[in-house]
Amino acid sequence: MTAQTSVGFIGLGAMGAPMATNLVRAGFDVTVHNRTAAKARPLADAGAAVADTPAGVAAGGVVITMLADDAAVRAVTLGEDGIVGRLGEGGLHVMMSTVAAETSHELARRHAEHGEQVLVAPVFGRPDMAEAAKLNICVSGDDDAKARARPFLDAMGVGVWDFGEEFGAANIVKLAGNFMIAAASEAMGEAYTLCEGHGIDRNSVHELLSSTLFASPVHQGYGARIAARTYQPAGFPMPLGLKDLTLAGEAAAQARVPMPLADLCRQRLIAGIAHGREDWDWAGLAQGVSDDAGRG
Amino acid sequence: MTAQTSVGFIGLGAMGAPMATNLVRAGFDVTVHNRTAAKARPLADAGAAVADTPAGVAAGGVVITMLADDAAVRAVTLGEDGIVGRLGEGGLHVMMSTVAAETSHELARRHAEHGEQVLVAPVFGRPDMAEAAKLNICVSGDDDAKARARPFLDAMGVGVWDFGEEFGAANIVKLAGNFMIAAASEAMGEAYTLCEGHGIDRNSVHELLSSTLFASPVHQGYGARIAARTYQPAGFPMPLGLKDLTLAGEAAAQARVPMPLADLCRQRLIAGIAHGREDWDWAGLAQGVSDDAGRG
Repeated sequence: MTAQTSVGFIGLGAMGAPMATNLVRAGFDVTVHNRTAAKARPLADAGAAVADTPAGVAAGGVVITMLADDAAVRAVTLGEDGIVGRLGEGGLHVMMSTVAAETSHELARRHAEHGEQVLVAPVFGRPDMAEAAKLNICVSGDDDAKARARPFLDAMGVGVWDFGEEFGAANIVKLAGNFMIAAASEAMGEAYTLCEGHGIDRNSVHELLSSTLFASPVHQGYGARIAARTYQPAGFPMPLGLKDLTLAGEAAAQARVPMPLADLCRQRLIAGIAHGREDWDWAGLAQGVSDDAGRG
Repeated sequence: MTAQTSVGFIGLGAMGAPMATNLVRAGFDVTVHNRTAAKARPLADAGAAVADTPAGVAAGGVVITMLADDAAVRAVTLGEDGIVGRLGEGGLHVMMSTVAAETSHELARRHAEHGEQVLVAPVFGRPDMAEAAKLNICVSGDDDAKARARPFLDAMGVGVWDFGEEFGAANIVKLAGNFMIAAASEAMGEAYTLCEGHGIDRNSVHELLSSTLFASPVHQGYGARIAARTYQPAGFPMPLGLKDLTLAGEAAAQARVPMPLADLCRQRLIAGIAHGREDWDWAGLAQGVSDDAGRG
């Protein structure tokens, strides 16, 4: 088997664009597609070929998709001009979006009908980490698909975490991790607002906690926004956060695992969107604490 | 002013004993007292003097207290044989327990009647961090009291965080931080159990999250217990956690800050104690998620 050097990439949003750019920089022959064609221009300038349809990136046999939600993934895979059946025998679809486990199962089944494989590979990291090729990537699916995808994943990320052969496992882990980010946002919102209510500067509390007990990337990054109550521009907007917590809640119900904190975070996002905060970062769910305390 | 070299220390529990030991090691003349006298023996072996009553440690003019709750702090300060009025004009009480802000205010008022000062100085860190003199110490009170206490604090901790002159401020910050630990425990409990419910190993999820997005001391330390569901022996037992979340809830009500996540965590601790888990570490509140999911 010769090393695969050509790869298709569908989805050039805030995450996909820097990820595809890193593939170009790593020397792969990248063909990109995006529904809004204008977003492909910077990639073309960087050296990528551009295709007008999802199917147009499939010729090389390996396609990476990085899209906003389940519907978008289904459309580019299973829709008219979708990639399913166009990768060819032994083709590989590396599906990196945050979607439900069932979506992964359906894609795997449909691709398998054509002798194609799916690797489920959702990522942790915000756009700045995508740019720096420092994403952490969770993978589940066939082991040989993991091996084949590895050179591409290494060009986009800093770590690959294997959750076995069950296709949906990486989806569940990704949803669990995103839930934990929302939970940390709620916790910081409550803690900082409690202190503020007692006359203590939110930022000084954040500085203490995020440099000692909670010295984590999530607490430092999201926490700085929550301490300062600065939720724009969004790295990841509230409606996408709501989508992920809804998927997490569905996965929890399927597994019979009550998650009251996940429910609370989901209600915060619904309330935030009700307040017209669609374009706020989802850390802005913590603003719900300030609202409730009459400190909006 | 000559440097203060003698200091009294009251409260030789899991935290107080290593803290007092570090003061002895740093060369201070330490006189200790503990309600259960047997716990003073290791300190005597290390070179400390031992007093039979709280008042017996007050002669040097500076006393540090590290006790389990508000009642214990009041007893050694304001009770018969308490230290109030026995430190002498210019005396200093360094109050390091996790208590309500009102307790700090009352102690400050009562000591002031005798020309004595209080420094409120609760600590973050578990017994192993106390042993290593790596505590983080929040302080509030008069600035000159902070300066006088500093040599003692430096012998026990790695960082001192100043929250101003309002006596209760450090108490509020400490309660907010402990709430965040409980919140993180609930979040990890829900996340790991969601994954477990989908057939994914809890420990592998913990390994990913606690070494990337949530690479914090709290997530690594408490999270390892929660992943493995190992809650004994306790570093900090459930009833003390319940005490702290009750104080946090009272502080929240006073400041008019609804904290639904704090309420959830408090209910988890009540349920845990109802299940006979008094001697579990308070991270065991996460076991409530497993109970609810029929995975006890």
